[in-house]
Amino acid sequence: MVDNPFYSPEFHGDYEIASIGRLELEEGGVIPDCRLAYTTWGELNDAKDNAILITTWYSGTHQIWRDVYVGPDHALNPERYFIVCIDQIGSGLSTSPHNADGANAEIAMSRFPHVRIGDDVVAQERLLREHLGIEKLQLVVGGSMGAQQTYEWAVRFPEKVLRAAPIAGTAQNTPHDFLYTKALVEAITSDPGFNGGDYTSNTEVEAGLKRHAGIWAVMGFSTEFWKQEVWRALEFDSKEAFIAGFLEPYFTVMDPNDLLAMAWKWQRGDVARHTGGDLDAALGRITAKTFVMPVDEDMFFPVRDCRAEQERIKGSELRVVQDVLGHLALFGVAPTYMPQIDQHLGELLATPV
Amino acid sequence: MVDNPFYSPEFHGDYEIASIGRLELEEGGVIPDCRLAYTTWGELNDAKDNAILITTWYSGTHQIWRDVYVGPDHALNPERYFIVCIDQIGSGLSTSPHNADGANAEIAMSRFPHVRIGDDVVAQERLLREHLGIEKLQLVVGGSMGAQQTYEWAVRFPEKVLRAAPIAGTAQNTPHDFLYTKALVEAITSDPGFNGGDYTSNTEVEAGLKRHAGIWAVMGFSTEFWKQEVWRALEFDSKEAFIAGFLEPYFTVMDPNDLLAMAWKWQRGDVARHTGGDLDAALGRITAKTFVMPVDEDMFFPVRDCRAEQERIKGSELRVVQDVLGHLALFGVAPTYMPQIDQHLGELLATPV
Repeated sequence: MVDNPFYSPEFHGDYEIASIGRLELEEGGVIPDCRLAYTTWGELNDAKDNAILITTWYSGTHQIWRDVYVGPDHALNPERYFIVCIDQIGSGLSTSPHNADGANAEIAMSRFPHVRIGDDVVAQERLLREHLGIEKLQLVVGGSMGAQQTYEWAVRFPEKVLRAAPIAGTAQNTPHDFLYTKALVEAITSDPGFNGGDYTSNTEVEAGLKRHAGIWAVMGFSTEFWKQEVWRALEFDSKEAFIAGFLEPYFTVMDPNDLLAMAWKWQRGDVARHTGGDLDAALGRITAKTFVMPVDEDMFFPVRDCRAEQERIKGSELRVVQDVLGHLALFGVAPTYMPQIDQHLGELLATPV
Repeated sequence: MVDNPFYSPEFHGDYEIASIGRLELEEGGVIPDCRLAYTTWGELNDAKDNAILITTWYSGTHQIWRDVYVGPDHALNPERYFIVCIDQIGSGLSTSPHNADGANAEIAMSRFPHVRIGDDVVAQERLLREHLGIEKLQLVVGGSMGAQQTYEWAVRFPEKVLRAAPIAGTAQNTPHDFLYTKALVEAITSDPGFNGGDYTSNTEVEAGLKRHAGIWAVMGFSTEFWKQEVWRALEFDSKEAFIAGFLEPYFTVMDPNDLLAMAWKWQRGDVARHTGGDLDAALGRITAKTFVMPVDEDMFFPVRDCRAEQERIKGSELRVVQDVLGHLALFGVAPTYMPQIDQHLGELLATPV
């Protein structure tokens, strides 16, 4: 276990933590006491049928959803819905390599077991059912790795998911994406300070985390983001200042093992694991009304990969989000971003199912 | 100086080496004895007006042009033209960090000065004029960094360049491209074996060179290349085998300092240096009949960046090459690649100027 003040309410706002107990993992490992951080907005009605689940992306938590996506002026409106955002395993808030202590001490740091997207979804379903009494979701929505979880929900628990909105992500990770994530992983693990995962502070891996941020700069934003100097809107004077003042600090506060636990999951997201590798069959299980929402400038979840999956989902619609930021449109920096998200999610929520 | 058997006729076929003497560099450094490796095909006619110049890309030399692009069945036809391919400074064959000895011993390895695309072009012009008596070029053609040199030729020596064909590259490097190259550079320099550039063998930097190859895997090929498993055409059984059997060995035999010397140049290619930063004015100098030839699936020299420059060049044409390999279409692996190149270059060479 490593002390890291970033993973606290000071940086992530209020959240709850619930134990769902022992979690047997798809890869054979075990989390002895799986603890999930989550946040809720709004009130669960008596019928318990107004719930929305938000899943989180690589490096992101409920906090960005609170800051950007959820509110009375948004489609994710707490005045109408009971909205639950559950931080993924490895997020640094839920059970993660850096915070594994007590019953989880045996899986701390480099000993953390491989976790899959399916493990997260099983854990989330248990939390919703056992702690909150939720058996049906009006909507599951998430971006990037959150989209992977959204698809996993819709395939694994079709009877529980009425609507699904995977944003900027795929149901089956692509080989290119696997290689991209591999480059991210190697930027971290190649740092001598990483020490095979047994560093004593994330600061010992700062150089690796900065290189990791540098690769995000190349793939996370679009070529046009850099050409048009969109970072000026964030009040930086140069791309170097933007990287040093935004992208690097964003990642260097994080825990390397936590990022790697998420990366391993991300690389292997695949709903076809339910159907012996048959993606058509897996996507054919989806009964949720689904809006597939890629970002037009995304460099690693390109529209065509998302469209190829959307076309295999009954009654689904492709809703392309226009955003020059590319994948990291998810940050919601462009003033034109949230109106599109609200438009699509609003229409989806208004669609009878 | 480091001994590296890769940089030899055994691996690169026959070539000449000529000294163009002392080369004062734009950044203030000096190459005391600038030696350029080059190859020629065909015969220079008596009027010395049938010459074509080929410039080389990052990590590539005249060898791939010989293997793939030049021949009696190609537009670059040695039966009609006298074709000269000059290996760039830092290529490992021309003066480069790893081979600097004798008069160049003072600039060996980590002491190698910063070289710019303009320095290469000045050196090439001197070689052509002083050694071969060539004052006019029917065509300058190159891919990637070779495109940068092609543009530099057309802007710097407009009276000497009758036609220009920059393939998969830009006249002014983009900020995204700069960051991509930065990630490549850092993959190498972060390897403890790199030792600030003062390693004794490239094998000491093998881990860094492999990570460098891994980032090329992400950006050098297209997302569709990986999705369609195009590497199967190269008789590999998995993407891992392709990377381990092709992409990694391609780079690990090379010299890290040589790659870094080229990378520094690549990052800063910019014809607007001639015109106080005014790209319109720089491209306005071009009198060559120019075909701008981006690859449709290129991840880091995307068509739109190339088109934006093409539209500023008088009488130029945009000739988009269709190739699922993306940037590394340049290798000429796809059977549909060379027919397109020959078509475009053939038309260009047939255009009266």
